[in-house]
Amino acid sequence: MIIANHIAKDLESASYVRRMFEQGEALKKQYGAENIFDFSLGNPEVEPPDSVREAFVRDASSGAPGSHRYMNNAGYMPVRERIAAMIGRKSGTQMRPNLIVMTVGAAGGMNIALKTLLNPGDEVIALAPYFKEYDFYAKNHGGSIIPVLTDSETFLPLPDALEAAINERTKAVIINSPNNPSGAVYGDDSLKAIADVLRVCEKKFGSTIFVISDEPYISIVYDDIKVPHVFRYFKNAIIVYSYSKSLALAGERIGYAAVNPDAEEADSVAAGLVFCNRVLGYVNAPATMQRIVSDNLETSVDIAVYTEKRDAICSIMRDAGFDFRIPQGAFYLFPKILGEDEEAFKERAVAHNILIVPGSGFGWPGRFRLAYCVATDTILRSRDAFMELAAEYHSKG
Amino acid sequence: MIIANHIAKDLESASYVRRMFEQGEALKKQYGAENIFDFSLGNPEVEPPDSVREAFVRDASSGAPGSHRYMNNAGYMPVRERIAAMIGRKSGTQMRPNLIVMTVGAAGGMNIALKTLLNPGDEVIALAPYFKEYDFYAKNHGGSIIPVLTDSETFLPLPDALEAAINERTKAVIINSPNNPSGAVYGDDSLKAIADVLRVCEKKFGSTIFVISDEPYISIVYDDIKVPHVFRYFKNAIIVYSYSKSLALAGERIGYAAVNPDAEEADSVAAGLVFCNRVLGYVNAPATMQRIVSDNLETSVDIAVYTEKRDAICSIMRDAGFDFRIPQGAFYLFPKILGEDEEAFKERAVAHNILIVPGSGFGWPGRFRLAYCVATDTILRSRDAFMELAAEYHSKG
Repeated sequence: MIIANHIAKDLESASYVRRMFEQGEALKKQYGAENIFDFSLGNPEVEPPDSVREAFVRDASSGAPGSHRYMNNAGYMPVRERIAAMIGRKSGTQMRPNLIVMTVGAAGGMNIALKTLLNPGDEVIALAPYFKEYDFYAKNHGGSIIPVLTDSETFLPLPDALEAAINERTKAVIINSPNNPSGAVYGDDSLKAIADVLRVCEKKFGSTIFVISDEPYISIVYDDIKVPHVFRYFKNAIIVYSYSKSLALAGERIGYAAVNPDAEEADSVAAGLVFCNRVLGYVNAPATMQRIVSDNLETSVDIAVYTEKRDAICSIMRDAGFDFRIPQGAFYLFPKILGEDEEAFKERAVAHNILIVPGSGFGWPGRFRLAYCVATDTILRSRDAFMELAAEYHSKG
Repeated sequence: MIIANHIAKDLESASYVRRMFEQGEALKKQYGAENIFDFSLGNPEVEPPDSVREAFVRDASSGAPGSHRYMNNAGYMPVRERIAAMIGRKSGTQMRPNLIVMTVGAAGGMNIALKTLLNPGDEVIALAPYFKEYDFYAKNHGGSIIPVLTDSETFLPLPDALEAAINERTKAVIINSPNNPSGAVYGDDSLKAIADVLRVCEKKFGSTIFVISDEPYISIVYDDIKVPHVFRYFKNAIIVYSYSKSLALAGERIGYAAVNPDAEEADSVAAGLVFCNRVLGYVNAPATMQRIVSDNLETSVDIAVYTEKRDAICSIMRDAGFDFRIPQGAFYLFPKILGEDEEAFKERAVAHNILIVPGSGFGWPGRFRLAYCVATDTILRSRDAFMELAAEYHSKG
């Protein structure tokens, strides 16, 4: 075999996702894309806000000399200064621009954070349900993800479960709030509970445990819910942010990583992030995109549009009798499957032209994820399909 | 210590480069940037060709729906189709788009190629002098770089030295022609000699050895020199390309990796590249940049401008009595230092406001690299400084 053994193995397990994707493509070809209700991908259908599109045109037209050259591996200093000022204001910390690294999206940010922190064999806790790509990211850098279950109804952290999972090899805990796939937002109580556990465990093991806060959905929250700033609860914290969702720029790969100025050895952690950004081959975040987001730090896609989508899918799923929790943030619904067999449920959904991702793909079997970042019309037209799918199960019930 | 031990160690060795950079910045502050002859960075001063800048404006203004969403991890299919057609034409192979992966520059391409191929402990040969970032790239994925010296005057491969370095752990050989830092271009004879060695060694060890051809400088060649297509010499080859130099888009991070269709298990290698592009956190190459380069596949910066720069620096260095070879490609000069002490030479250059990188930074002590991708005016104005620097050494006899 030519390719590395572990890659060949990973490709096998990744082939499930590929088959799902290919099945979807085949269905779209057969029935027409508009007749397939594809809720399988977190790829927002909404367009970037007007101010972002205007910034694009302005930037391209200006043709300012040097706009496309390499810059510092950490990114443009003026961009980092503006982001630092914003984080300082929101978190109440003395944020400094040298603690900010512009990244190739949140996936790039997660990778540099993990590479900076992990010694071989180190463990990283992820609160399930969680984005399974974390498994690969940790493995890239010699570590591994230890999933810890959250409350089965609220999907909020369970302090005792967290404490039980932490040992002397635990180097970091990933927090992802608003959560993909559950839509849960961790409030003050949850963050305080996690902080208390970490304090106890750090003392017990004489270790330092970092919080890596993966925040791509932080500006997509509903019903005026407030998401507390993680720097207010965790000194030893790295924020990983992406503009993929907030500015609908997923394909452009732009985000940042930010170290809490009050973290132990904050400057050395930031230097590690910059170094890893360089040697992992990102080199620097895309130049033009840095300037575009810098002009749009307080901008976000229209949350009313996502609220409408959320309410539409919730109404359908409620009427069809599914058991789910109304998401407080992000754009995913995470209902219980019907019947007992996840795979059978997925296939039955496909038979109704509905594409979903089984909960096992998020470390939580027995549920499924609906990504409702699709056209509202698609959601509305999926009603009959969901009703019929549910009816099939209920008639047998 | 908070950060990983190996990162802390790498940061120490990386601090030499940082100190050099800081020294340069301090000099620029003290004397004015225009009075510092900074030949230390391969960051092209030239602007992208007009057609690239026009494509930017056109793309930004079109506001086509979906332009900034995720696409396949391998990149847009129409872009890959056009690149495949071009490679097929140039290489005489039956190139297919599914063997092309759009990447975050060549650094991204090198990382996915190495991660795809390397099992822990595998070795990768680099022909010195070479771009030392390769060391980190191989280490990222559990491998290591084994440097093999080339001819000390021509910097062309020495088949015997190559053969002596290959063993059963050798998984790949990196070729970088035109070469950074020597400016050497490997002609038909050199490539054939390497191919012969690989054939012998593969038979001897019962192994498959891939050629990874790092080609960011392939369109920057002088005097009508032809660079042979590597696919014509190596079946088991991956091309890693970047538009950083050819279109002066270094900060935008766009390139591709391409597997020879005649390679063993070519499809599985390509699948590995796509998978690694995803899990290393690049996810996909920046969307807008894919479209921009797709409209400019046959475009290049004006080579006449680089020829002018090359001739200007060569004239100065010749007059100052330096010993060097005229580059056939890329935009670096790699002369012998004066005196015996590389570090002392570098510091003396700094005293004349000249910034260079010692040859040890490329696995070849006793020489130094001049990156002449700076303003031609800067080159011309550096004449006195180089003459004085050389005079200091010559007066000491």
